[in-house]
Amino acid sequence: MTTPTAGARPDEVRRHNRTALLRRLHVTGPATRAALATELGLNRSTIKALVDGLAETGVVAERVPALRSGAGRPSLLVLPQPQAAVVVAVDVRVEQVAMAFVGLGGHILGRDSWNLHHRSREPAEVITHIADSVRLLADELDVTAVGVGVSVPGVVRRSDGLVHEAPNLHWTDVALGRRLSAVLKAPVRVGNDAELGALAEHVRGAARGSDDVVYVSADVGVGGGVISSGAPLRGSGGYVGELGHMVVRPGGRPCYCGSRGCWETEVGEAALCRALGLPEDVPRGAIVAELRSASPEALADRLAGFTEWLALGLVTAVNVLGPELVVLGDLFTALPEQVVDEVRRVVRHRSLVSRAVGGTRVVRSPLGRDAKLIGAAELAFEPVLDEV
Amino acid sequence: MTTPTAGARPDEVRRHNRTALLRRLHVTGPATRAALATELGLNRSTIKALVDGLAETGVVAERVPALRSGAGRPSLLVLPQPQAAVVVAVDVRVEQVAMAFVGLGGHILGRDSWNLHHRSREPAEVITHIADSVRLLADELDVTAVGVGVSVPGVVRRSDGLVHEAPNLHWTDVALGRRLSAVLKAPVRVGNDAELGALAEHVRGAARGSDDVVYVSADVGVGGGVISSGAPLRGSGGYVGELGHMVVRPGGRPCYCGSRGCWETEVGEAALCRALGLPEDVPRGAIVAELRSASPEALADRLAGFTEWLALGLVTAVNVLGPELVVLGDLFTALPEQVVDEVRRVVRHRSLVSRAVGGTRVVRSPLGRDAKLIGAAELAFEPVLDEV
Repeated sequence: MTTPTAGARPDEVRRHNRTALLRRLHVTGPATRAALATELGLNRSTIKALVDGLAETGVVAERVPALRSGAGRPSLLVLPQPQAAVVVAVDVRVEQVAMAFVGLGGHILGRDSWNLHHRSREPAEVITHIADSVRLLADELDVTAVGVGVSVPGVVRRSDGLVHEAPNLHWTDVALGRRLSAVLKAPVRVGNDAELGALAEHVRGAARGSDDVVYVSADVGVGGGVISSGAPLRGSGGYVGELGHMVVRPGGRPCYCGSRGCWETEVGEAALCRALGLPEDVPRGAIVAELRSASPEALADRLAGFTEWLALGLVTAVNVLGPELVVLGDLFTALPEQVVDEVRRVVRHRSLVSRAVGGTRVVRSPLGRDAKLIGAAELAFEPVLDEV
Repeated sequence: MTTPTAGARPDEVRRHNRTALLRRLHVTGPATRAALATELGLNRSTIKALVDGLAETGVVAERVPALRSGAGRPSLLVLPQPQAAVVVAVDVRVEQVAMAFVGLGGHILGRDSWNLHHRSREPAEVITHIADSVRLLADELDVTAVGVGVSVPGVVRRSDGLVHEAPNLHWTDVALGRRLSAVLKAPVRVGNDAELGALAEHVRGAARGSDDVVYVSADVGVGGGVISSGAPLRGSGGYVGELGHMVVRPGGRPCYCGSRGCWETEVGEAALCRALGLPEDVPRGAIVAELRSASPEALADRLAGFTEWLALGLVTAVNVLGPELVVLGDLFTALPEQVVDEVRRVVRHRSLVSRAVGGTRVVRSPLGRDAKLIGAAELAFEPVLDEV
């Protein structure tokens, strides 16, 4: 039971409109003043005042659009200035860390990445390496980050960035948010990798405009992020679900999580290697090369079992969550079209809820391997857009 | 992107406070003026004005509490008056329809129920029978219902009460909300049975005060309702998920939904009958009697397979949704303690997310068979509390 919102004061209204305008420019890019007025439902004098204010501080620039439509004075094009707000995005994977400086509007200003091996996977090593890399790249680009977003393949407490368990990294109770914040001297937000993949698809990928989405991705592990009624789905304590640990094959292979036959053990990277007849420890590139070079028909045969487990897991996820869209991310984007088609066929035929919602679509992520990095950047941008 | 809430006018504030007060009285029962002031964060003169207004129109009554604490003038006890707002709750099951008039505060004023057989399960028959029963009971109780809530075991569109598919009833695209509203001349809201079971547990049952809850119940079918961050979880188009159609046993028995090895085929009423060695069409009473009369140890043995499927489905649901609490409803409440204990053990050991959220609790519903009826009443009360 909440009390009614107190009357909004003029400066609150102005601040709210300013954030809405910035978010619009950040997410969908340059627009004319006229288009911004229409989209945000504000009058042109309000837009002018806001844009003038943002232009004064260098957050946006304005120019006459190249293509003029109609007669009369052209509406000025408003462009977000990437350097006006820069965040650091970090994607900690099991075998690699990717890092980028990302400017307002989502432009990647610079990148770094390095491989992880047994020893370099220790939290202290990873934190030190991130800090060094951030310092070097910040110098090179001559920017200062106003926030940091980190993607981790594990169970993460959003409030303080505690990594409760990241089994494939062998991390338990790592205070990643607090420790990184101390060395980087900037606010750090940490999220589950699949949740951030879903966020990226929702803001900049296949799921723009979709309110109910399941994003599923395979790297070493398998994770799922869910957008429900337009917002990320979280469970108790803010923890996100672990779709990779749905029990899809009772009595199947043991999983490190203590269960057996988890979706992850059936459709993760190791399972894909087994299906392809490759050793389980080949580099990612070799898997993708095999998927691209083999004949599609032969591949569909070799991947028949893998495809069935992928599809059955999705039937369960779709029946529980009722999404209009499933986005297959990361390693799954390398699957041949025949495999994705078969997954679509099974979901269509075996999911009661898919039929109810008018047919859940299954698509590949257009963001591919960058999805989690982009999601980490958006996580960092969330509080920043209020304050630029 | 929404615009800020406009300044709340005094009559809006008053209306909001009035609804909050009524909801508090409706949900948790009589309270003193002093307790209401504390709980709602309002001052005593505001409470006095609101209570006086409600007492004038007969919505509440006041009396001096039997037990007086402390010295000085006692704070008056405020009691919601059941007759002040009466709704009809209907629980359409596969084999029975239950109906009740429910007054403000959740008091059941009168009930009716009848069995469904093959012919009487036709939508037109069901609607006519509900209308007749409502008329008779309204006359007998001398009340008029201000709203109607209906629970249906199927995929329901909340906006207009269309039953898209209720497979165990053999209903497809039945405009139940519209048709019932036309004959009852009252607003009708229709919900999925498991969703309403979850709502009932959240408002009046085991899940009071819990924000992340999975309610799972077995009747002929198996359904699941989810409360996520304090609100019902819905998928695209407002459809709720169908936990009963998670694929728990690949290659298992065919399900009417077009899939195989659904949770429902493994732990629904028919599966329980098979496990108990009873014919699949025995009445519910015979199943419950068998569960109560057999020795607990022998039962645990006979139900070992059933128990495993129940537990594995819950592991998946807990890993996807991350609830702090699972409530077992309806027929599951008749399961012996040994079975529920084994389910708890498996969820604790095999669910990564249960561990993260501090151990998902698994309890039996205290509302039992009435949960969906109570949920249907609460569904009907939602808009009414604004208008009494």
